Amino acid sequence: MEILDMERVPELIRRSDVVFLALPHGVSAPAAQGVLKEGKRVIDIAADFRLPDSSLYEKWYKAPHGAPELLAEAVYGLPELFRQKISKAKLVANPGCYPTSALLALAPLLKNGLVDLRSLIIDSKSGVSGAGRALALGSHFCECEGNTKAYGVGTHRHTPEIAYYAGVLAGSSVDVVFTPHLIPVARGILSTVYARLNSSLDTSGLRRIYQDYYAEEEFVQVARDGELPETKWVLGTNRCFLGVVAAKKQAIIVSVIDNLVKGAAGQAVQNMNLMFGLPENAGLKQPVIYP
Amino acid sequence: MEILDMERVPELIRRSDVVFLALPHGVSAPAAQGVLKEGKRVIDIAADFRLPDSSLYEKWYKAPHGAPELLAEAVYGLPELFRQKISKAKLVANPGCYPTSALLALAPLLKNGLVDLRSLIIDSKSGVSGAGRALALGSHFCECEGNTKAYGVGTHRHTPEIAYYAGVLAGSSVDVVFTPHLIPVARGILSTVYARLNSSLDTSGLRRIYQDYYAEEEFVQVARDGELPETKWVLGTNRCFLGVVAAKKQAIIVSVIDNLVKGAAGQAVQNMNLMFGLPENAGLKQPVIYP
Amino acid sequence: MEILDMERVPELIRRSDVVFLALPHGVSAPAAQGVLKEGKRVIDIAADFRLPDSSLYEKWYKAPHGAPELLAEAVYGLPELFRQKISKAKLVANPGCYPTSALLALAPLLKNGLVDLRSLIIDSKSGVSGAGRALALGSHFCECEGNTKAYGVGTHRHTPEIAYYAGVLAGSSVDVVFTPHLIPVARGILSTVYARLNSSLDTSGLRRIYQDYYAEEEFVQVARDGELPETKWVLGTNRCFLGVVAAKKQAIIVSVIDNLVKGAAGQAVQNMNLMFGLPENAGLKQPVIYP
Amino acid sequence: MEILDMERVPELIRRSDVVFLALPHGVSAPAAQGVLKEGKRVIDIAADFRLPDSSLYEKWYKAPHGAPELLAEAVYGLPELFRQKISKAKLVANPGCYPTSALLALAPLLKNGLVDLRSLIIDSKSGVSGAGRALALGSHFCECEGNTKAYGVGTHRHTPEIAYYAGVLAGSSVDVVFTPHLIPVARGILSTVYARLNSSLDTSGLRRIYQDYYAEEEFVQVARDGELPETKWVLGTNRCFLGVVAAKKQAIIVSVIDNLVKGAAGQAVQNMNLMFGLPENAGLKQPVIYP
Repeated sequence: MEILDMERVPELIRRSDVVFLALPHGVSAPAAQGVLKEGKRVIDIAADFRLPDSSLYEKWYKAPHGAPELLAEAVYGLPELFRQKISKAKLVANPGCYPTSALLALAPLLKNGLVDLRSLIIDSKSGVSGAGRALALGSHFCECEGNTKAYGVGTHRHTPEIAYYAGVLAGSSVDVVFTPHLIPVARGILSTVYARLNSSLDTSGLRRIYQDYYAEEEFVQVARDGELPETKWVLGTNRCFLGVVAAKKQAIIVSVIDNLVKGAAGQAVQNMNLMFGLPENAGLKQPVIYP
Repeated sequence: MEILDMERVPELIRRSDVVFLALPHGVSAPAAQGVLKEGKRVIDIAADFRLPDSSLYEKWYKAPHGAPELLAEAVYGLPELFRQKISKAKLVANPGCYPTSALLALAPLLKNGLVDLRSLIIDSKSGVSGAGRALALGSHFCECEGNTKAYGVGTHRHTPEIAYYAGVLAGSSVDVVFTPHLIPVARGILSTVYARLNSSLDTSGLRRIYQDYYAEEEFVQVARDGELPETKWVLGTNRCFLGVVAAKKQAIIVSVIDNLVKGAAGQAVQNMNLMFGLPENAGLKQPVIYP
Repeated sequence: MEILDMERVPELIRRSDVVFLALPHGVSAPAAQGVLKEGKRVIDIAADFRLPDSSLYEKWYKAPHGAPELLAEAVYGLPELFRQKISKAKLVANPGCYPTSALLALAPLLKNGLVDLRSLIIDSKSGVSGAGRALALGSHFCECEGNTKAYGVGTHRHTPEIAYYAGVLAGSSVDVVFTPHLIPVARGILSTVYARLNSSLDTSGLRRIYQDYYAEEEFVQVARDGELPETKWVLGTNRCFLGVVAAKKQAIIVSVIDNLVKGAAGQAVQNMNLMFGLPENAGLKQPVIYP
Repeated sequence: MEILDMERVPELIRRSDVVFLALPHGVSAPAAQGVLKEGKRVIDIAADFRLPDSSLYEKWYKAPHGAPELLAEAVYGLPELFRQKISKAKLVANPGCYPTSALLALAPLLKNGLVDLRSLIIDSKSGVSGAGRALALGSHFCECEGNTKAYGVGTHRHTPEIAYYAGVLAGSSVDVVFTPHLIPVARGILSTVYARLNSSLDTSGLRRIYQDYYAEEEFVQVARDGELPETKWVLGTNRCFLGVVAAKKQAIIVSVIDNLVKGAAGQAVQNMNLMFGLPENAGLKQPVIYP
């Protein structure tokens, strides 16, 4: 592995069309400022530009925002939901991995006004790579192997991100209960999304709504009748696979992604493709690794 | 491994005080009949005597019940909730693994009338041993490793068992949404239970209610402030560990058990101890295996 | 998954240039006969054409050989060792996964006459996919997870395959001790190969011999000084990564492959590329999946 | 977890009969000195007193020995091999995990003069807990899961420990090649030991020698004909399980232990039992955890 010589960074930026920032939150904002000043576009993988205003950021991240004046022009980079805005953006905030899995599951319900906005529960299961490579006892093999746990119940920083964009989709504020769990896999997120239906849709009716909603999408697939997606079905790919069940006025949507691809780097590439008029799937055609 | 000579079974039963039945459902009921006729007590690990009436059994198990006349005397073997009845029972129905984890999490809420009985959601994550040793592609190492999935959404047979005994605890019928998931561990269940609070209890208030409810219980432990239980904390033990969070009128209870001990064989031993006036923890004092 | 209509097979063969056979051993030989008769080439992934004569086959596979007359024209499909013959072959026997990892580790030692031919020990560790998808208690998640074992010690059918081609490389018969082990990963083989050196080479001298031997090979890479390869370094790729140590007249070579790619399907594609004059890496450029 | 108040240590030592030291190597030696001076016995789990002289220690551990004058009275705490000495010892050096698995496999061969002392190869596979709880990238879940690697080839510090005590058993110096590997399990070591036989023993003859050698041992068990031990067979127990194969003048011995019990804390308790005339299995009767 080669370590970048920091002195060369300014020159590298000048020679680039777009800069991907994969920095700790808080560090990203001033870095983005510098890059934008050079007239280059930015795709930021940190959290700095995901929330709509600096007070919300400061409440959840416990620190002042580094570049609040840029928030107005930042675009949330979930292509299936905000494609037009992304294609014209100079600054894209790449979504968190949990919000990606949750919002793609929620969008057809919220855009079609099908559910009680006070009833949304998101129960997510994530692989350990979601916690990053930093050394921590919680990522030690002997702690994770053969084990599972919930964490950050009621306090995880992806909660306001999900709630805010769910509200944008619904056109109204929503309540979200979000519970992340750690499971002993390296990669993959499965989110189980619960919402109370306003009408008495059955499973096949609800599935049809999902199929219509995502009919044109290459990277979102709706499982067939009787099928529920598994995280290995998307391992190494930029895809989100959705399973749909409706029963007794309850919608249960199962959503799987590879947190390192659709949940991070792959989605960043998809955003770049949109920003530069490239085919949206350029560099993103790799087949799934299975088993 | 020695295989039991079937011819010797009648004699073995005559020499026993109690018989543990670990048979497929449907096979258990007539076997229990035979054992009871000999004047011996039965602890049945199958599902035959868990549901209160034969029509409910027949609806979910798609077969006629083998001994409906015994249902009235069968006692549901969850010691922390039905200890008195178990101690006098001749026929104990050992609970399912998922219902054990869910009902211990729900009981303090339901007995104290704290939650909306239409709002109960149980999202469970189970190790692969829950599916038994029978050979199936779904239990193949290469299918499970590095993978997770939901299954039986809306159709799992533990749903009516949870709903019925939750109703007994609440003194009123309840609605239960139950979603089981498979995670790549051999042993362990973690259930995340969601319920809407009737009042504005906070986490410490709710924890106090749980601590009071289980104050005398050796096998149920409530996690401390800021702590959420992990499945490895109970590996190899007969314990259930509960984590409690309340936020914005939502209760979130995390419950972990070893599905092969508190969720099956250990609980069966605990039931035997109660039925025969033995110390309730006899044979159940093994320390946790960690890591 | 679509199931092939068996009636369509003859027509499909007539429309093909080459047929990959992935059949049980014993079934492959007559199938190969049929395909060759149609004037089409065959790449056989079973064991039927790996051993040089039918008596050796019958001794280890306990069955008569189905097409002994084809053995003379079959070519062993390990491209790095038998590239010229493969490029002209009509019938290629794709090597076993263990022999691929072992022979690539042994070749530089044997071709250069560096080691005592009575001292070869191969200790291999394989993922569970090596045992196939067939249902067996030994592949059950709960048996494999958190576990490791040796199996087939002294009796594994890859032993004569390794010994025979090691002998071809050495130009003389060799003794091979081969011990396979199962480890709880889905994919990957790591073979640790021990051989007594004839001279007092040190690690860097031995590494230079390996680097020279594989200098032109795209799919075999020799680890750098101080580096030992890990199975995840080749996951999803057609590569073999070799680590080299010499100490006290003992060579210790560590060899890793993905058993489903370089150890099976990927190597079959590489063979096809050679047989048809295509670029040897066509279809085989996928990057590694890590972590 | 309660942290020990260091000020209380001297008093705690005075009130104890024996002190278990689980300290980093180098720190152990002076601590042992202090405890012995108080007239208390010591069981040291570090490496400080395992090697017979300080120069060997200094060569492999790259540091001066902290209490060389104690080496003469230190006893190597492998009860099955040195029981008499341990029972009279004041200072016991608890063996390393790899040496425990290797020496129990080698002892019957070496004590009976059955093998070429220049031919010993030990290929060990260890769970990640062998590396301790300290944070390191090599113990991160995402590095270990689905992966395997060799490490410390030719340089691991357990090499001289194995070689020295193998020499004591043989009554002559021996050469040992020792290659440790990391496999993705939390607990367990499997060592595959290779040695060239002097005579043409077959498997059943060799197994009989092992059965005789360990006939009186509670914690060492020889697998039956056709059986090879798996690490999960000893999980959570103080047992070593040995599998024996002889073929073409090669002995192949497979040895499994739980590295945290027979390979560390359990063996330390077994040593204490011997030192104090307690039943050797006191505190060590826990059944295996399986699966």
